[in-house]
Amino acid sequence: MNNGRPAAGLGVVRDAAFVVEDGRVAWVGSASAAPAADESIDAGGRAVIPGFVDSHAHLVFAGDRAAEFEARMTGEPYRAGGIRTTVAATRAAADAALRANVRRLVAEMTRQGTTTVECKTGYGLTVDDEARAIRIAREECDAATFLGAHVVPAEYAERRADYVDLVRGPMLEACAPSANYVDVFCERGAFDEDETRAVLDAAKARGLGIRLHANQLGPGPGVRLAVEYGAASADHCTFLDDTDVEALAGSSTVATLLPGVEFSTRSPYPDARRLIEAGATVAIATDCNPGSCYTSSMPFCIALAVREMRMSPAEALLAATAGGARALGRTDIGHLGIGARADFALLDAPSYLHLAYRPGVPLIHSVWKSGVQVHRTQS
Amino acid sequence: MNNGRPAAGLGVVRDAAFVVEDGRVAWVGSASAAPAADESIDAGGRAVIPGFVDSHAHLVFAGDRAAEFEARMTGEPYRAGGIRTTVAATRAAADAALRANVRRLVAEMTRQGTTTVECKTGYGLTVDDEARAIRIAREECDAATFLGAHVVPAEYAERRADYVDLVRGPMLEACAPSANYVDVFCERGAFDEDETRAVLDAAKARGLGIRLHANQLGPGPGVRLAVEYGAASADHCTFLDDTDVEALAGSSTVATLLPGVEFSTRSPYPDARRLIEAGATVAIATDCNPGSCYTSSMPFCIALAVREMRMSPAEALLAATAGGARALGRTDIGHLGIGARADFALLDAPSYLHLAYRPGVPLIHSVWKSGVQVHRTQS
Repeated sequence: MNNGRPAAGLGVVRDAAFVVEDGRVAWVGSASAAPAADESIDAGGRAVIPGFVDSHAHLVFAGDRAAEFEARMTGEPYRAGGIRTTVAATRAAADAALRANVRRLVAEMTRQGTTTVECKTGYGLTVDDEARAIRIAREECDAATFLGAHVVPAEYAERRADYVDLVRGPMLEACAPSANYVDVFCERGAFDEDETRAVLDAAKARGLGIRLHANQLGPGPGVRLAVEYGAASADHCTFLDDTDVEALAGSSTVATLLPGVEFSTRSPYPDARRLIEAGATVAIATDCNPGSCYTSSMPFCIALAVREMRMSPAEALLAATAGGARALGRTDIGHLGIGARADFALLDAPSYLHLAYRPGVPLIHSVWKSGVQVHRTQS
Repeated sequence: MNNGRPAAGLGVVRDAAFVVEDGRVAWVGSASAAPAADESIDAGGRAVIPGFVDSHAHLVFAGDRAAEFEARMTGEPYRAGGIRTTVAATRAAADAALRANVRRLVAEMTRQGTTTVECKTGYGLTVDDEARAIRIAREECDAATFLGAHVVPAEYAERRADYVDLVRGPMLEACAPSANYVDVFCERGAFDEDETRAVLDAAKARGLGIRLHANQLGPGPGVRLAVEYGAASADHCTFLDDTDVEALAGSSTVATLLPGVEFSTRSPYPDARRLIEAGATVAIATDCNPGSCYTSSMPFCIALAVREMRMSPAEALLAATAGGARALGRTDIGHLGIGARADFALLDAPSYLHLAYRPGVPLIHSVWKSGVQVHRTQS
């Protein structure tokens, strides 16, 4: 339904058909004009959408923080320090347990229509624990991001500079072979501008892509740095000033919004309209993690984007597909134009509008990845 | 997990087992003390909860209003008049189509853990169309509510009194044999106090139960009337004054909150804390309908109740189970105490907290009704 040009809108084709060859879209158009095919599937009036591209997730962890969530919802604010709880559980977990957790969540995402998953490290925070996390992320997901600079672990609390040196030195060296990207949580309480630069400079020197956690909890240098360093994406983008918005709009850095976090931490939502109207490219992702947002549901994030960030249903779907693709530097996914990977989902609904119109309802009927069916709901 | 006494909290039992005999809970306690059984099921560490009781839904309709939803989300406010769009589509639909729509939505609800569904009429608004709607509701759902007083249909716009006479006269007569309850949309733009009384008096005279749509769009007499007439439930309860809250707290009328509506119409949420702290019994339901809220997901409504209405996860689960049961005058459902109907769901999660902690994620692993399995997710 998407012509692959985000700025031009969704490109909905009614009564459509498309042909898949060798895992890619070979033809798309009106069903009445479709060429013959070896095998054909009748969508039965269901809407077909590109598979979601979830460009921000933290899946390599052990344990959960349900009790912390309950405490927060009944009174306590979100604190990044809670990350250390998951670090302790993750370090204590066997490789197989971590891998099983990632597989469980990726499978859950698949059932919800996601066909591309980015996955960050950041709950190991030792050389060995980060190295195994990035290997698992690379093997189980579509893009792997090294986030040694997630928080300063407790044992380095009194010697932050040593931890930054570890991250940009031996830890990066151990992780680089499996990493597509390097990410830094650039935020008060996490890493400041100088620390962020130190890590990003090392990443650049190795030719790795860059993403940044930026301006989530308050104003700061994150977005500015993301644009300066040519990051693929600046993620969160809640507290922006005019300079930040202009910088994003004038760059190829995607503004990735994660409304599940604001839902799950009862925080103010980012101003998506301001970003869209300034001309920035916006992506939506889940931020699936056990602390600030444990949803794995792109449809839920679309419903939030529409309700809370005043994106139109079309803008939200575009951000969850083509926007996410752009945030991962991909042009072959996030749309169903000719040549695209045949990653798509059928909805138990006649239109993509139902993703926001029917919030919380599991509407994903079936899912294909590179033309191969990977999920189908029980009938 | 629920001991059937809402005021006493959830009554969580860890490492629990329960025994089902003839469709009812015969024993519940610690797994280590469980008596022998003919057949046993290992929940595999999954949390078990009572099936949700969705005590407010409008399922007998045709068509959808996705375009109206899109327009509203991109600028237009919710207007009750949109109901007439669905009335036209419903009148034009064949019986089989209406029944199929109800079955589709009940099946969708079942997959999401709901084991008891109340269903209202209100999209027919002629004697014949309401009569067929209440028959379908009674046959396909667990409680059927006659809502001829939903809106004044267009053809009666200039003679409202005649429509009220029709509702409380021939229409009620035709619907009473299938109806458990009579409901009135008591709201500016729908039915005023005198009109509401006229319909409720006729319902009382026939010995039917009463529910009321009350104080949704603004202050009004709805809640007061609900309590005066001994209604099972006053639904919506967004715009309450102190007298309304005291009336609910001092009565057996349940305050049924429908946060999916506020989500889907971008309206202010009811003040659940005020009601709970005053001592009112609170239920949560979906209000599933094609106009103001097309969710069928009780887990989604629980997540909203926690995030937006500051209910604790335990209060929200209680309201979605025992609260809904009370709103339907039932003591045999909404809990898993001895003697309860064995209506329950297994979660793909270790705790009920995950219903709010993992918003939008389909966590219902499997569902039993009267001890018979009615749903299981694809493994």
